[in-house]
Amino acid sequence: MRMVDLIQKKRDGHELSTEEICFVVDGYTKDQIPDYQVSAFAMAVFFQDMTERERADLTMAMVHSGDTIDLSAIEGVKVDKHSTGGVGDTTTLVLAPLVASLDIPVAKMSGRGLGHTGGTTDKLEAIPGFHVELTSEDFVGLVNKNKLAVVGQSGNLTPADKKLYALRDVTATVESIPLIASSIMSKKIAAGSDAIVLDVKTGAGAFMKTVEDAEELARAMVGIGNRVGRKTMAVISDMSQPLGFAIGNALEVKEAIETLQGKGPKDLEELCLALGRQMVYLAGKAESLDEAEELLKEAIRSGKALEKFKVFVASQGGDPSIVDHPEKLPQAAYQIEVNADADGFVASITADEIGRAAMLLGAGRATKDSLIDLAVGIMLNRKVGDAVQAGEPLATIHSNSEDVADVVELIRANIQIRDHAEAPVLVYAEITE
Amino acid sequence: MRMVDLIQKKRDGHELSTEEICFVVDGYTKDQIPDYQVSAFAMAVFFQDMTERERADLTMAMVHSGDTIDLSAIEGVKVDKHSTGGVGDTTTLVLAPLVASLDIPVAKMSGRGLGHTGGTTDKLEAIPGFHVELTSEDFVGLVNKNKLAVVGQSGNLTPADKKLYALRDVTATVESIPLIASSIMSKKIAAGSDAIVLDVKTGAGAFMKTVEDAEELARAMVGIGNRVGRKTMAVISDMSQPLGFAIGNALEVKEAIETLQGKGPKDLEELCLALGRQMVYLAGKAESLDEAEELLKEAIRSGKALEKFKVFVASQGGDPSIVDHPEKLPQAAYQIEVNADADGFVASITADEIGRAAMLLGAGRATKDSLIDLAVGIMLNRKVGDAVQAGEPLATIHSNSEDVADVVELIRANIQIRDHAEAPVLVYAEITE
Repeated sequence: MRMVDLIQKKRDGHELSTEEICFVVDGYTKDQIPDYQVSAFAMAVFFQDMTERERADLTMAMVHSGDTIDLSAIEGVKVDKHSTGGVGDTTTLVLAPLVASLDIPVAKMSGRGLGHTGGTTDKLEAIPGFHVELTSEDFVGLVNKNKLAVVGQSGNLTPADKKLYALRDVTATVESIPLIASSIMSKKIAAGSDAIVLDVKTGAGAFMKTVEDAEELARAMVGIGNRVGRKTMAVISDMSQPLGFAIGNALEVKEAIETLQGKGPKDLEELCLALGRQMVYLAGKAESLDEAEELLKEAIRSGKALEKFKVFVASQGGDPSIVDHPEKLPQAAYQIEVNADADGFVASITADEIGRAAMLLGAGRATKDSLIDLAVGIMLNRKVGDAVQAGEPLATIHSNSEDVADVVELIRANIQIRDHAEAPVLVYAEITE
Repeated sequence: MRMVDLIQKKRDGHELSTEEICFVVDGYTKDQIPDYQVSAFAMAVFFQDMTERERADLTMAMVHSGDTIDLSAIEGVKVDKHSTGGVGDTTTLVLAPLVASLDIPVAKMSGRGLGHTGGTTDKLEAIPGFHVELTSEDFVGLVNKNKLAVVGQSGNLTPADKKLYALRDVTATVESIPLIASSIMSKKIAAGSDAIVLDVKTGAGAFMKTVEDAEELARAMVGIGNRVGRKTMAVISDMSQPLGFAIGNALEVKEAIETLQGKGPKDLEELCLALGRQMVYLAGKAESLDEAEELLKEAIRSGKALEKFKVFVASQGGDPSIVDHPEKLPQAAYQIEVNADADGFVASITADEIGRAAMLLGAGRATKDSLIDLAVGIMLNRKVGDAVQAGEPLATIHSNSEDVADVVELIRANIQIRDHAEAPVLVYAEITE
């Protein structure tokens, strides 16, 4: 088999066999196929796409390129959730204890990564004492005992994906549905869960700018998951404005607690229920999605979800009293309001630019060596569709520096006020098969 | 400027500026842009094409990547001819003296290269004593004196093209009209001629399998040439069967002499006139293509063309008596006939397979270190459309080995006899602007 022939086959619109796809991934992982052939191949895939079978084969070839996590010692159906990434996305912090409170095992492996705020690990570390350094045995033991644990990433998962992603990033081959879908799904599958729920974001703050593109990506991933024996569902959700009010690590922990108490932002709660009902259904704990949603609502009402959060925090060294005393979370030295300069309705809050403002404050990492300030961030005081009068706050900056003129400017430039505006749709679609 | 942005721009179907194209070619030549970005770029070009302006810019950027030949010391309009390559293509050996006999300077730089037979240099070296090792001064002096000289390739011409071609060859990005056209044209322009006539082959033995593709390539090259100030014309000619009767180095020299004597194969003569009339016209020696063709016919009839060949051969150390005594050319030890096994008409002589048979005999190089046997080759006894009776020869193998069973088999398998067959069209189109 020659790589050049496989590039040509894909270039000319033909379907590659399982063996051929394994040859590409295996050869590339082992440095037997050079970058310049793989980048040409990726560009051919960009133009010619892949069939569902090819996508599944590519995914599994990347899964098998490295270590895989064995969660078989954990009882029950392990359901993982993945978001394609947005601004102020606090859903994992809410969903993990919420779903676990229904006796569904949540075995979360989480990284740090780059972004507007830190990853789930960073956010949780805003809780005094909390740590994610667990041995495999402790991790499995905690999940079996409490149904919930979060561990830092370890092992050499999907090295083929890492190598391919780095190459795609410099060869303008990132924006390809089969390549994005197989990249995400390979990581989720290697992480060992039985079922996967995907939150595919769309809008200014998301990678997929249109609902159509987001739905295409969602269908691609659901197709892959179901084909390789991991039950998969997806939600298409809005990321034109940030989710919830909080963008920042400690700020989001506080917001997650409020949501578990039933008094969080409406949009965050709505999305948590939309994702949570799929998780509960796929875990086999409900006969229907609606029944699953009722179970989740009851877990919030009864306090069971909040209680699970406390147990989880304590089990990983954290101080559970932050639930009742959120002032124990890291606090920024300054709170600076950004006020409206006119009466009207908030017409847009451009998610990615607000995220950039949070990163400027130090809430996220620009490079992997950046330090994160867990206390800082932005609290929105209004969301799209809300009325506001001149002089009223649009957002509050939580900063450890007084000099935030550029952040104020960035926020002001990205919150538009108009005579009329309506709240956007939050959940565009559910992909259940 | 970042290469990844230029790849994306082309990927998304936009036109690159002159500056951007120079950035790509210059950066790649200097090893500042890695192979993996250029291969992705080439694949994007494969799918998105280039405008005529981009093609011209790419061509000139490759021309300027290395040395260029200065032919300004040669008087008159220098016209070069280029063929996209076929089997048994003896046109250069005929055209060079034929055109030169009309006082048009032919300053030919010629390589060896790979193929079914050797290059023009190899073929000419079948003439005892002939050599192409000339100093620049001798070369220019000979052209000014005799209007014709052939010199071996020297200098570092179009290194960008060499590097890009090697990369395209292993990344399935060869078959791209803008990349093929700019590759050919950059070499021709760097070689210094004022006007260019292109013979674009089509059919089984050609790179372009269909007339439409060949015409697209021809129009691309004519477009580039005229845009950068080199008058360019093209002929689309058939390469479904080999051109003429001879495939082999000494065999083709003999055939060229016969054609200069007015008794060569009809198709070879027709193509030489079709290409030659464009050369004469572009050199400004005739008011019309038809007038140019008359001049060429007269040069053959009068013996002027043949006389020019003799002077040319003698001027580069060769023995001109081979014209009257072709038996002085290298002779193969064995002549083995391949006979028809049925009555009928020759319906096809698959050019590339017959070429492969000649290479098996040793007439051409499979790799650049292969040795060529100048004596061996194949003489066709019939062409497509000719009647044949069982037992009559279809082709004669000239070999220095008796063991030619595989060659016989290959030839037999690739000459079809049917109840009816007609000679194919030879010249499909002339592209004159």
